[in-house]
Amino acid sequence: MDTMNTSQTDLPQHVRVVEVGPRDGLQNEPQWVSTATKLTLIERLINCGIRDIEATAFVSPKRAPQMADAAEVVHALPAAPGVHFPVLVPNLRGFETALAAGAREVAVFAAASESFSQRHVSCSIAESVERFRPVLQAAHANDIRVRGYVSCVVSCPYQGDVAPQAVTRVACELADLGCYEISLGDTLGAGTPASVARMLEAVLRELPASRIAGHFHDTYGMAIANIQCALEFGLRNFDASVAGLGGCPYAPGASGNVATEDVVYLLNGLGYECGINLDKLVATAWFIAGELGREPASKVARALKARSFSNR
Amino acid sequence: MDTMNTSQTDLPQHVRVVEVGPRDGLQNEPQWVSTATKLTLIERLINCGIRDIEATAFVSPKRAPQMADAAEVVHALPAAPGVHFPVLVPNLRGFETALAAGAREVAVFAAASESFSQRHVSCSIAESVERFRPVLQAAHANDIRVRGYVSCVVSCPYQGDVAPQAVTRVACELADLGCYEISLGDTLGAGTPASVARMLEAVLRELPASRIAGHFHDTYGMAIANIQCALEFGLRNFDASVAGLGGCPYAPGASGNVATEDVVYLLNGLGYECGINLDKLVATAWFIAGELGREPASKVARALKARSFSNR
Repeated sequence: MDTMNTSQTDLPQHVRVVEVGPRDGLQNEPQWVSTATKLTLIERLINCGIRDIEATAFVSPKRAPQMADAAEVVHALPAAPGVHFPVLVPNLRGFETALAAGAREVAVFAAASESFSQRHVSCSIAESVERFRPVLQAAHANDIRVRGYVSCVVSCPYQGDVAPQAVTRVACELADLGCYEISLGDTLGAGTPASVARMLEAVLRELPASRIAGHFHDTYGMAIANIQCALEFGLRNFDASVAGLGGCPYAPGASGNVATEDVVYLLNGLGYECGINLDKLVATAWFIAGELGREPASKVARALKARSFSNR
Repeated sequence: MDTMNTSQTDLPQHVRVVEVGPRDGLQNEPQWVSTATKLTLIERLINCGIRDIEATAFVSPKRAPQMADAAEVVHALPAAPGVHFPVLVPNLRGFETALAAGAREVAVFAAASESFSQRHVSCSIAESVERFRPVLQAAHANDIRVRGYVSCVVSCPYQGDVAPQAVTRVACELADLGCYEISLGDTLGAGTPASVARMLEAVLRELPASRIAGHFHDTYGMAIANIQCALEFGLRNFDASVAGLGGCPYAPGASGNVATEDVVYLLNGLGYECGINLDKLVATAWFIAGELGREPASKVARALKARSFSNR
């Protein structure tokens, strides 16, 4: 697949940003974040113009105590026409709890690496896909959209490089099950535009770019370059986390999710349109980072600090 | 100019990294860094495999007190065959002092923005070029290589966007004067691959990529994506600063120079060869950051912390 000349991206094009801060970002925060703070964060993100916000996860409170208030969060979600609030569900039981709480979109989580799947989903990749089959059936019966995650699309902390074919296989299986979109996650953040291009070349031979989202981690500072690469491959859906919330469990002290404000800065610079107010977003980054007692991990949030505070 | 398909960069190609940490990185450090520490840093950088290290600046100690030991640093530089140690000189007097101290390569500093030139070089762009003419003449008479910097090649803190034609003009003037290489600096770090591409398209119509270096700041987290863009335009010389030393005077608390270790990680991932040992470089980043009482600004240094310490 040919890459686009960056100088020719003159026409504005819409890019959809899926904000994952309230779930993926907060899930591993050791200090309890109140339900009220989570809901304030979500309301501020809506007010920034974001239309897809992963709100919480219906998982075991033992494994993710920070998500123990999932039902309360979903109950209290604001009425926001046109805004989607996917929630993570690991299995049919999680789906049923989410449905009872009022969730209208869910997400399921698979891996492209067998070792990672065994360690984090406690079964093989094939078994995890089978586990999602009844979830997808129940979801469709209830008119609920399902998003699919594939983690370790470039490399795995246990087995190293992951073959693009392995990513393609599980992405196609999730698409065949009925996921409307497959989010491809570079969980370690170890990819560069070369390995990301190899992976996307393989996946895009089987699935259209419109059904793929990029989920990049900035552990090694490559996320923005990888998103630029994915844009050149035609991807127009990207996950990101306000303030860069969510670290990397495999490199303590390192960055995790790419910061939403860094992604928006890139998109603005490249002439893409995403409908997100950057000043409000930077103020939101400082708000949630302040609640967590630290500074935002994002370069843009720090560079625009003065502007952000005048816009709070 | 067509960009390269990143997936086709299979053949190893050499990229030259010019380390600017000891000068550009340390120059604005408020706390005095001892001459011994500066020299240890330089020795460690050589030991990483770096062959171009900007060592110091022969400028007024009033304007840059951290560079007050320039002559001592140059006197004590290690005998390192094949390693170049450019030193910054603002004018003929600075050049003569540098020459007397034993410098064998110098760098001069111009701007692509009139406002920036007036504020930081205290004269117009044209006057600054004229001021360099006797420097270049004296340098050539003494067989001294001269590197030229152009700052604000994308935008300027005082006048906003900078026209690619303005960058091209001053770059050509420095090349005509005899600078062997022109380092184009995105001083604010505000560029994205779109604005960087527009700028490089203009410059490369007049000068070959082999005479151009990219000097990117990571203030908004775009440096790695901009370097990737510049690589696609054929640039093979990049300035970088170990540990991301050197902040941004226009955004206090924000990042400045792109970190050398992030650049090396990108180059390794893309299959370029730069001759730099990443583990040793990360250990060097932690060494100098520790001397300054903080953590490295680089994502790679933080992600590879465990490895770096085992290689110290």
